[in-house]
Amino acid sequence: MRIYTKAYSPLLPLVPEIKELLAQHRFNDLKKIFVDFEPADIAEPLSKLDLKEKATLFSLWDIDFATDVFELMEIEDQIALLNAVDKSTRIEILDELSPDDRVDLFEVLPEEMVSRFLSIMDKKEAKETEELLKYESDSAGGRMTPEFAWVRDGVTVGQTLKTLRKTAKSLETVYYIYVLDKYDRLSGVVTLKQLVLADPRTRIKKIMHRNPVTVPVDMDQEQVAKEISRYDFIALPVVDYIGRIKGIITFDDLMDVIKEEDTEDMYKLGAAGKPPDDYLASNPLSIVKHRMIWLFVLIMLGFVTGTVMELYSGVLAKFIALSVFIPLLMEVGGNAGTQATTVVVRGLATGEVKLKDIWKVVKKEFAIGITLGIGLGALSLMRAVFFQKEPLFWATVGLTTIATVVVSTTIGSVLPLLCEKLGFDPAVMSGPLITTIVDITSLVIYFEIASHLLI
Amino acid sequence: MRIYTKAYSPLLPLVPEIKELLAQHRFNDLKKIFVDFEPADIAEPLSKLDLKEKATLFSLWDIDFATDVFELMEIEDQIALLNAVDKSTRIEILDELSPDDRVDLFEVLPEEMVSRFLSIMDKKEAKETEELLKYESDSAGGRMTPEFAWVRDGVTVGQTLKTLRKTAKSLETVYYIYVLDKYDRLSGVVTLKQLVLADPRTRIKKIMHRNPVTVPVDMDQEQVAKEISRYDFIALPVVDYIGRIKGIITFDDLMDVIKEEDTEDMYKLGAAGKPPDDYLASNPLSIVKHRMIWLFVLIMLGFVTGTVMELYSGVLAKFIALSVFIPLLMEVGGNAGTQATTVVVRGLATGEVKLKDIWKVVKKEFAIGITLGIGLGALSLMRAVFFQKEPLFWATVGLTTIATVVVSTTIGSVLPLLCEKLGFDPAVMSGPLITTIVDITSLVIYFEIASHLLI
Repeated sequence: MRIYTKAYSPLLPLVPEIKELLAQHRFNDLKKIFVDFEPADIAEPLSKLDLKEKATLFSLWDIDFATDVFELMEIEDQIALLNAVDKSTRIEILDELSPDDRVDLFEVLPEEMVSRFLSIMDKKEAKETEELLKYESDSAGGRMTPEFAWVRDGVTVGQTLKTLRKTAKSLETVYYIYVLDKYDRLSGVVTLKQLVLADPRTRIKKIMHRNPVTVPVDMDQEQVAKEISRYDFIALPVVDYIGRIKGIITFDDLMDVIKEEDTEDMYKLGAAGKPPDDYLASNPLSIVKHRMIWLFVLIMLGFVTGTVMELYSGVLAKFIALSVFIPLLMEVGGNAGTQATTVVVRGLATGEVKLKDIWKVVKKEFAIGITLGIGLGALSLMRAVFFQKEPLFWATVGLTTIATVVVSTTIGSVLPLLCEKLGFDPAVMSGPLITTIVDITSLVIYFEIASHLLI
Repeated sequence: MRIYTKAYSPLLPLVPEIKELLAQHRFNDLKKIFVDFEPADIAEPLSKLDLKEKATLFSLWDIDFATDVFELMEIEDQIALLNAVDKSTRIEILDELSPDDRVDLFEVLPEEMVSRFLSIMDKKEAKETEELLKYESDSAGGRMTPEFAWVRDGVTVGQTLKTLRKTAKSLETVYYIYVLDKYDRLSGVVTLKQLVLADPRTRIKKIMHRNPVTVPVDMDQEQVAKEISRYDFIALPVVDYIGRIKGIITFDDLMDVIKEEDTEDMYKLGAAGKPPDDYLASNPLSIVKHRMIWLFVLIMLGFVTGTVMELYSGVLAKFIALSVFIPLLMEVGGNAGTQATTVVVRGLATGEVKLKDIWKVVKKEFAIGITLGIGLGALSLMRAVFFQKEPLFWATVGLTTIATVVVSTTIGSVLPLLCEKLGFDPAVMSGPLITTIVDITSLVIYFEIASHLLI
């Protein structure tokens, strides 16, 4: 039994031995090493081997196991490996790959390689792949697997189990069996649990769950993920516009979707652009391209702060000590605004906050802003006391802090909600964008208060 | 068949009708409305009803259905409902709740209420609950359900199926059947798929998967989520220190964990403190408490910017135009730094970036920093040209931009890696923290370059 305390592969310490056995061509001993390990345990040690060693292992392994390991590899490594193994292994892997993983791979391959691979594959698998490639990669259709357990709606439980025994081996999941009418439309679903519990003579129609939850082929994957996590199903059927089942999406694919979507949201919140497919392998220039867009927008907006500074240069010249507190006040506002925008953006993503709550949110953030503002205002006022002997200067710094924090939390919470309202992704209201917007308001507030109190 | 285009409940339009039927006590008609709907569809319309109406529905529904709906409700609503329904419904709900959900609820209840509920519950369920309450709520033990399908290792496939038929009804999942030795230690696992495919006379020992992946009861839930998403299992067995199985964690619990953990990371990246259990229902003061901690740390660090400004006040006094570009330069640095820290923190969380990649990351971010710096430097220089006639001032602004961006992306990428190295959560290196640190360096760079070029 293996008990993990860290996510590491228990095979890792065996890498030197594996390398030695490979060098000595002791293939039978090699095979023994991998018995009883999960494919997920192989991925990491595999990365320590060179391409030729990997290719040897893949031709050695049982094809089911080899494909399971293959499916866990990074796409770049998959491509390299496919080009390194002998032709028969290549064909076997391509044919055995689960259709959704195959499509994920084919989508990034050059066209020439796709047609070369399709031409050596089994006719049926090739056709299926071509069908799947037609769907958008981030839609339900692009994520689904077209292989699932199904029966016609006229059969009995016993007949269903018999059908399952014939087809189960090649299926990713058999825990839900979909019941189709003669037009291939989904009329219900039964679980394997129900089948095992039921009398074999019972008609499927009698025990099936009618009115199953489905997703349309063109639904965005983010929405699909929300659906599946709402219902806690192992799989969801994907249907076309007249209700014919085209495939299923399983929970493990959707865990990947949730992670991808959360990554996208975090990148947006950090104004870091589109996440690269593989950060470490990406060319810095391709990353620069994504980040530059936001930095460009932000610097343009930032130019406004320069204009504000110019506008109030008279105030600044008369009371130069004001400049000492500019960085601090800008930071305080930016930080409070970033907090509020983070909370609202994440709340909208998880569904905890809804558009209809807009007033509730604004009132709450306003109350939070006042409380935080008073606390931080007291601190910055104390800092001002240490710096200057002028009580009106202390008041300027303290009052600006309060006003800035209130305005920042309010702006930080309202703007994402406004985005949602207008149909944009609220996550574009990133920390840096809110910070830049808030910087402008902070400066104006500061100079306005200063010009009233000090001059 | 229902096809969703948005995550909304198809029951929502029926709320007025439900309210009317409730008012008229037409309970049979009411029951008909809910036939064929998923519990997940009930949660939203339910929130439109008042407490008394809810309590009536819960006493009306079949207890299995009622508990499923109950499990999907927010904890605050669960508590209110339990106190609103009649005693027999209360007992039924408490007994029928799945053990992990019951524990989640009991963990936030006042002690007095816990003992009151335990005293009215079924003895067996009460004891089980007390056992589970001993585990940390965010550990594998605190997340698991102690009810799972199991057999002894001496039985056949046929005997296993027979056992399953008896126990399946009360189990959350029966797709994995755990095989225990006589000391209750886990010796293997079979899937329901294997059972259906195998000859009933086969010994379980012959087809079971030995050496199953397990998690220890005290493993942190974040780590458990990483394990399950690594292996794509529907459930993972939770074992104690001598390998006895104590419960299982299912994929749907882990989807919740992934979401929780991502929320925590986003809050950290936004320096927004600990996520509240329910943002909308939380008292503003309790939210203030969480946010204040970071704002306090950040304002203290921000005081350093004031000191830097004081130190260079001589430079500033001689060339007051310098102050106009302070906000812009601080923003540019903060934005570039936030981008880098977002990318590295998320990379570390998903496992895409590892500690050993530190030099690769630093080199990459340095290259990115130089490229971005030159682009942004050109823009800020142009802005300076519009503002001042002094070429050395242009150079100061342009060069500061380049240097600031390079330093910011490097700091933004190195600090999270350093945190990971020292065993802290890299997500504490939030955008606001990096921004504040980078602000200090930007100011120093600016004044240093200015004092060399301009004075």
